[in-house]
Amino acid sequence: MDLWFTENHANNIKYSLKVNKTLNVEKTDYQDLAVIETEQYGRILVLDGILQTTEKDEFVYHEMIVHVPLFTHKNPRSVLIVGGGDGGAIKEILKHNSVERIVLAEIDRKVVENAKKYLQNISYGLDNDKVEIMIGDGIKYVNEHKNEFDIVIVDSTDPIGPAVGLFTIDFYKSVYECLKDDGIIVAQTESPFIYGNLINKLSKMFKQIYPITKPYICIIPTYPGSLWTFTMGSKKYDPENIDTNNIPKIDTKYYTPQIHKAAFILPKFVKDIFEEV
Amino acid sequence: MDLWFTENHANNIKYSLKVNKTLNVEKTDYQDLAVIETEQYGRILVLDGILQTTEKDEFVYHEMIVHVPLFTHKNPRSVLIVGGGDGGAIKEILKHNSVERIVLAEIDRKVVENAKKYLQNISYGLDNDKVEIMIGDGIKYVNEHKNEFDIVIVDSTDPIGPAVGLFTIDFYKSVYECLKDDGIIVAQTESPFIYGNLINKLSKMFKQIYPITKPYICIIPTYPGSLWTFTMGSKKYDPENIDTNNIPKIDTKYYTPQIHKAAFILPKFVKDIFEEV
Repeated sequence: MDLWFTENHANNIKYSLKVNKTLNVEKTDYQDLAVIETEQYGRILVLDGILQTTEKDEFVYHEMIVHVPLFTHKNPRSVLIVGGGDGGAIKEILKHNSVERIVLAEIDRKVVENAKKYLQNISYGLDNDKVEIMIGDGIKYVNEHKNEFDIVIVDSTDPIGPAVGLFTIDFYKSVYECLKDDGIIVAQTESPFIYGNLINKLSKMFKQIYPITKPYICIIPTYPGSLWTFTMGSKKYDPENIDTNNIPKIDTKYYTPQIHKAAFILPKFVKDIFEEV
Repeated sequence: MDLWFTENHANNIKYSLKVNKTLNVEKTDYQDLAVIETEQYGRILVLDGILQTTEKDEFVYHEMIVHVPLFTHKNPRSVLIVGGGDGGAIKEILKHNSVERIVLAEIDRKVVENAKKYLQNISYGLDNDKVEIMIGDGIKYVNEHKNEFDIVIVDSTDPIGPAVGLFTIDFYKSVYECLKDDGIIVAQTESPFIYGNLINKLSKMFKQIYPITKPYICIIPTYPGSLWTFTMGSKKYDPENIDTNNIPKIDTKYYTPQIHKAAFILPKFVKDIFEEV
């Protein structure tokens, strides 16, 4: 049988991966969920038809959403992840010895369960003693916790479906309160090849709240547009002013201290999107 | 009618673009050629089923294959392009006032003809007075011209079909002879997500010949793997030692003097591919 998983982007582009095996398909309280084994990218997690993560290229996204803020902060001890139920971000956070507490606020219990069962290469950190898994509304959690975290990572799906509320100025303001005095937020903010307008809008929101707002990029081959942005809001530390000599050696496949700095150098059209008034 | 162009990668991945109109399909002496108008990426050129260039994202590839070597060289006056019949590289080279002569060695006359007819946004430089179009074998042309060019750009298709001979040590040695004493070669060397082994092999060849061999990267959303490499071989100038203050302002959408430097900072797994013995 010739089986393919196909993702549609804006009805103009289709990205398809050859399927070896469908491991699970279910309808959760929040979304359609599937775990599929593909020939090229290993096992993949799909939510509402959108590819979220693959075994073979997840390292790019998870290393870059984690190590850039954690090595920008001088001594990160507590991290909150909003979304990220696959556990990929946690796997990377656990490489930082300073971190004592990781809270995962994931709205969909089934994402965590499926990740634990089918994506163990990605999810193994979920069982670590430092991790508290809070199944519920991340926005509510953030609202109820003030001055508590060094880092907040918004590891969300696209700005449709359950994640819509994570792309609003009210949420980013609430995260500001949830962070300590030298805290840092990083959010995944989509591809400039697809979501230019959204990125520009989000950038303006961050700049209204955080004294240091800086976007950075990486390359994720299985995501639409591939060129991916993160937006960092920081109360105190400038991510470009790190001393690369002070960064301890950790096991990575994408991140290096040099990549940390290079990631903030944007192609001209991306720079224009972020700077445009 | 619901019409799609689909590119197959290694029988594992399909990348499809919605088609508005098929402008031309023909069998040339060397390859199957098509020009198609897509909804998302404008007009595209397809050779042997492989997408070569699109109106909407060609700027990334052409700016990076041209401006990096030309701004590394102190005074580029003569440039040879092997392949590149679409004219995209020429369009960018013409932004450098120092350049007096551009030779295009394209094996397939039909590529040039179709680009002139259907891809005028990309090809308009082909008619410039500084340009000599040489229809024929680029390898033969290089062999017959010694100590003549400041820059040689290998703007080839994938290492299958007519371009196979452009991925060999004999060819790179021949280019060395074709270059002046301070000359520079740049070749497109595919994606590390797909062609890791090839990239490692090519890097070794370059290092045997050129005193300065350096790979650099950019992001092309319509190419398989999206993370794209170029390999530079230079007789004298180090592309990372440029003085960014000396780079004149030119009209670009991807390249900036800062991107020039950042492009040489490789993600760890890409660095490993190039440095692996």
